[in-house]
Amino acid sequence: MPKTKSQISIGVIGVGQMGRIHAEHIVRRVHQARLVAVADVDAKRAQAVAEALGAPRWYGSPEELLQDKTIDAVVIVTSTDTHADMIVAAAKAGKDIFCEKPIADTVPDGRRAQAAVERAGVRCQIGFMRRFDPAYVTARKQLDDGAIGRPLMIRLCGRDPTFYRRGKGTAFVKTSGGIFLDMCIHDFDLARWLMGAEVSQVFAKVATLGPPEVHQLDTQDSAVALLTYSDGRLGVAESSLLVPWYDIRTELVGTKGTLQVGALEYQPVTVMSAAGIIEPGIPWFMERFGEAYVAELQHFISALASDQVPAVNAGDGVAALAISLAALQSAETGQPVNLVAA
Amino acid sequence: MPKTKSQISIGVIGVGQMGRIHAEHIVRRVHQARLVAVADVDAKRAQAVAEALGAPRWYGSPEELLQDKTIDAVVIVTSTDTHADMIVAAAKAGKDIFCEKPIADTVPDGRRAQAAVERAGVRCQIGFMRRFDPAYVTARKQLDDGAIGRPLMIRLCGRDPTFYRRGKGTAFVKTSGGIFLDMCIHDFDLARWLMGAEVSQVFAKVATLGPPEVHQLDTQDSAVALLTYSDGRLGVAESSLLVPWYDIRTELVGTKGTLQVGALEYQPVTVMSAAGIIEPGIPWFMERFGEAYVAELQHFISALASDQVPAVNAGDGVAALAISLAALQSAETGQPVNLVAA
Amino acid sequence: MPKTKSQISIGVIGVGQMGRIHAEHIVRRVHQARLVAVADVDAKRAQAVAEALGAPRWYGSPEELLQDKTIDAVVIVTSTDTHADMIVAAAKAGKDIFCEKPIADTVPDGRRAQAAVERAGVRCQIGFMRRFDPAYVTARKQLDDGAIGRPLMIRLCGRDPTFYRRGKGTAFVKTSGGIFLDMCIHDFDLARWLMGAEVSQVFAKVATLGPPEVHQLDTQDSAVALLTYSDGRLGVAESSLLVPWYDIRTELVGTKGTLQVGALEYQPVTVMSAAGIIEPGIPWFMERFGEAYVAELQHFISALASDQVPAVNAGDGVAALAISLAALQSAETGQPVNLVAA
Amino acid sequence: MPKTKSQISIGVIGVGQMGRIHAEHIVRRVHQARLVAVADVDAKRAQAVAEALGAPRWYGSPEELLQDKTIDAVVIVTSTDTHADMIVAAAKAGKDIFCEKPIADTVPDGRRAQAAVERAGVRCQIGFMRRFDPAYVTARKQLDDGAIGRPLMIRLCGRDPTFYRRGKGTAFVKTSGGIFLDMCIHDFDLARWLMGAEVSQVFAKVATLGPPEVHQLDTQDSAVALLTYSDGRLGVAESSLLVPWYDIRTELVGTKGTLQVGALEYQPVTVMSAAGIIEPGIPWFMERFGEAYVAELQHFISALASDQVPAVNAGDGVAALAISLAALQSAETGQPVNLVAA
Repeated sequence: MPKTKSQISIGVIGVGQMGRIHAEHIVRRVHQARLVAVADVDAKRAQAVAEALGAPRWYGSPEELLQDKTIDAVVIVTSTDTHADMIVAAAKAGKDIFCEKPIADTVPDGRRAQAAVERAGVRCQIGFMRRFDPAYVTARKQLDDGAIGRPLMIRLCGRDPTFYRRGKGTAFVKTSGGIFLDMCIHDFDLARWLMGAEVSQVFAKVATLGPPEVHQLDTQDSAVALLTYSDGRLGVAESSLLVPWYDIRTELVGTKGTLQVGALEYQPVTVMSAAGIIEPGIPWFMERFGEAYVAELQHFISALASDQVPAVNAGDGVAALAISLAALQSAETGQPVNLVAA
Repeated sequence: MPKTKSQISIGVIGVGQMGRIHAEHIVRRVHQARLVAVADVDAKRAQAVAEALGAPRWYGSPEELLQDKTIDAVVIVTSTDTHADMIVAAAKAGKDIFCEKPIADTVPDGRRAQAAVERAGVRCQIGFMRRFDPAYVTARKQLDDGAIGRPLMIRLCGRDPTFYRRGKGTAFVKTSGGIFLDMCIHDFDLARWLMGAEVSQVFAKVATLGPPEVHQLDTQDSAVALLTYSDGRLGVAESSLLVPWYDIRTELVGTKGTLQVGALEYQPVTVMSAAGIIEPGIPWFMERFGEAYVAELQHFISALASDQVPAVNAGDGVAALAISLAALQSAETGQPVNLVAA
Repeated sequence: MPKTKSQISIGVIGVGQMGRIHAEHIVRRVHQARLVAVADVDAKRAQAVAEALGAPRWYGSPEELLQDKTIDAVVIVTSTDTHADMIVAAAKAGKDIFCEKPIADTVPDGRRAQAAVERAGVRCQIGFMRRFDPAYVTARKQLDDGAIGRPLMIRLCGRDPTFYRRGKGTAFVKTSGGIFLDMCIHDFDLARWLMGAEVSQVFAKVATLGPPEVHQLDTQDSAVALLTYSDGRLGVAESSLLVPWYDIRTELVGTKGTLQVGALEYQPVTVMSAAGIIEPGIPWFMERFGEAYVAELQHFISALASDQVPAVNAGDGVAALAISLAALQSAETGQPVNLVAA
Repeated sequence: MPKTKSQISIGVIGVGQMGRIHAEHIVRRVHQARLVAVADVDAKRAQAVAEALGAPRWYGSPEELLQDKTIDAVVIVTSTDTHADMIVAAAKAGKDIFCEKPIADTVPDGRRAQAAVERAGVRCQIGFMRRFDPAYVTARKQLDDGAIGRPLMIRLCGRDPTFYRRGKGTAFVKTSGGIFLDMCIHDFDLARWLMGAEVSQVFAKVATLGPPEVHQLDTQDSAVALLTYSDGRLGVAESSLLVPWYDIRTELVGTKGTLQVGALEYQPVTVMSAAGIIEPGIPWFMERFGEAYVAELQHFISALASDQVPAVNAGDGVAALAISLAALQSAETGQPVNLVAA
């Protein structure tokens, strides 16, 4: 018997920058959700966020939050290396789970998290927010409607002004798993979702091409990858952290036409001066995907409230992770890497 | 002594389509605001909206709502011909006022409303939401920053798929005051705001150019106007209710360049098929100005909460109304009509 | 009996900037044409151009050239005030005529030229080159194909960097007849051609809005006009000489959609730097309409060679002239001016 | 002692579709050039073209044309497999050479042709016309001016409506060397020219992804390649013959910004109808690169006339060929292929 609920009680685990944004969205933007607690290993931060957002309870550890019986579901926004354990623990506690990407930092850990979720019979959505962006939603619908026939080839562009915005903070890319795990994983998820098939081989390169400051950070700022699908279809992806404006675009070639998603311009405001025609670029990810972050949480909550299974499940999380890690392995070995079917 | 408040209690008067949208925004999107009551001459509608949105009280008449002492401010979304009286009554009741445009349907009534507001010392904002659209906000800032020098000429385009969307309902344009009062008034407000000056003369034409169905509606579907500013600067405006997609664009020529606001495309999704390159148009006003409707209310509430005076006051409402009615008079007489300085 | 010719012998009268360009096009770009002579009141200039372009003969006066029996047709590129007399003389000499716009600087003179052409049975094309621009040709074809149904309203934008490019030379606009006769006349021709009807009333304003240097030139740099067609359809036009880049755009609202011609960008080259997204503007008219100037001459020559009547005849020249002068009269009197049907 | 010439006498070898276009350009569009002869193994075709274009002489074999002492330079537009021998013969005959790409169909043959040119001291330009396209010229200038700093990564898109336009004729791609040699070679030339460096490794895939008709043609219709430069910089290229409109775009990420060349739209004509916003696509290569074909020949002729060395020499031809063939080898072996420095 399906159990529908009028309101889902949420606990957010990890309230750094993104965790706090998710928590705010639950309070202010998402219907049928209630923020009942936040947890952070920095207890003061947990307290501050709880008070600022009017959450009734706060905890200094995820474990405590998971024992809170009033909580229906958790939103996990901790550091990448803790995702798998956190999912396992939340699943054991019987909580439904929304977890930021990536699901884990190794494929076995990802599979372990996926297995825990399936064993516990809880629901799990991974934070590939692009799938909820209105433009990508329209594109997916166009594909479903046959606007370009069968997709044959995909081109993915993921450029980010991380270096311009964060400067030295760019090093976070390393701690968050490197450019493939932190950035390209979004493109690899799109590569699966829009082509409707699994990638079977990756050949990739990474490089540190930025100015000397970036080299000192011992991180990668540039990546390219060539994707082959199991049925012979093809894709290319490229990513850079060195561009001045946020620039995410995807193109598909199909049997009856081509499809492009994404634009360079942030706002339709054009100045023509002696310098030329000037339009504003997209500052960063929240200006591009702000509504998608709301929509993915709304999707998760609405699914729980209506006793349905949300899209973008743990298996999707493992599959995109596997491509990312295959790309890393290819870049390290200089050889194409085949992906084993799940 | 300034009185700041942490939360403003709002009553919405008139909960037809737009009134309900404003009420929802107060409940779900606007900070520091609380919807405490709604009123509608259709009492059942008032009750239904109150219950759906969780408003504690509802009234079958505006008068009753105005007597509710718990209400700090009202949002007036009744029919155009009642705006002036409603503002006068709300001002007498000591409520701060947000009123949908136009402020009235005659200039004397508009002035009467303005005087009542000023006499009562309440605050009044008129619903020219375009001023709060992110793109127009950026454009205004560009002007302030001197990006195009001093603006010399303005071109205003206001095209609306009313006929495509509403069909026979297009007749509402007549009851709402005709194309100048219902539609062009937004452009006339932009004409004042972006040029930073008053229009001193209008020459205008209206016409019914649509298919026979429109002619039967006895309404106007097309308008053009030539604006002269008191210092000799110039403008042109055109409006149509007959286009398939919502299309609001504004252009300025300045001493150092030109500025354009607005785009045709709804979303950055492009399909190239045998039919050509196809992009989606903007369906209607909520798809274009949805966030602006939230932002104008947020501006109003934030101003009240911090004991400040919101922008776009009753005087602005009267000035845009005066241009609209001068345009109508010009269209009826075939002569240019001079506007008297306020 | 139709007389087809394999090659048309051309004499160019007036070889200043535009005359020389036309002469070069005849030599290098136009098929079935031969430049046999040039004439200029500055005989040295005539000689220099003839030698540079390999024209066999040159003359120090138009009259001499018109007596040259080897010449089939003339291209008239003299100053505006001489156009009518030149057309009359060429017609009397039995030459087919291509004349730069405007056909004359008064309507009676325009009619006199038209009458002379018709009396002599020669062919006459006026230089409204925009009608031969590939984009406008496509737009006209779209209209013919019913892409937007019946056109109802037109918007014309004619912005020119004359002041940026010519500086003090901007004064030429005055000598060439002012902004309506020199610039807007192209838009007024489009207004007739694209709407397929005659303008019956004009209300217009001109102004000098540019920096002090322009005021010293005693010329106009800005103009707006509201057009009414005899069947009640409407149009607006605006023109400025003060913009940094050449910007000619036309929009039509039709019963089934809208049509736009023209773009801001000169070349598809986009730089995203810290300053924003930057594209190149269109420098000036030759960068925008260079091919249209070739195409209009090719049309003229091909028509003569195949014994047909070229498009854009003297009557078109008079009609656009009449609108321009009505706009001027309206700007001077402050009243709408009705146009008498030809 | 430099020898400048006022006019260069040209013989065109091979007057199929492209050869005839080049011949026409020499006659009608290129300054300082004279078409004195054409040759084709189909003697009737040679005669027909010579007569149509007014060339004084025609030959039924290239050898005869090469013996024509009045000829300064030849334009070679024969089938790909003959290019190298033709260049060697022309060099021996002392003719300057313009040869369509590719320079040969094997690297040793390309090097043999290059050596023959160098030994004979004649000049040789390879037909990479994109380098002469106004937009690419502007882009190259922007790079030289430092608009985006040092280029770090390149993305090349080469999509062609060959299948839509030629249908079964698509098989020509196979005879002309396959997709890498016929199509991608243009992108590989851009990859060298715009990045200013040599590609050191290629990993590539090809596929036949089109509808069954294409599979029957036993040709490839899709290709992707990942490029590594000797200094670690990166690139991706993708190509398809299956798109409805011609679509060539290039993007560069640099240390100070990004640069994009190319647009989807053919003409600035936009129709908004119930179907959406529709713009025309670029039909095929002549609509996109028509002027570039004229400009590359003009560059060649102007260089000869002023006794200078034209750009895009035989070495450039060999280098782009080597990348194309390395891509083919990679696609066949499934392994990355290293390029040996010349």
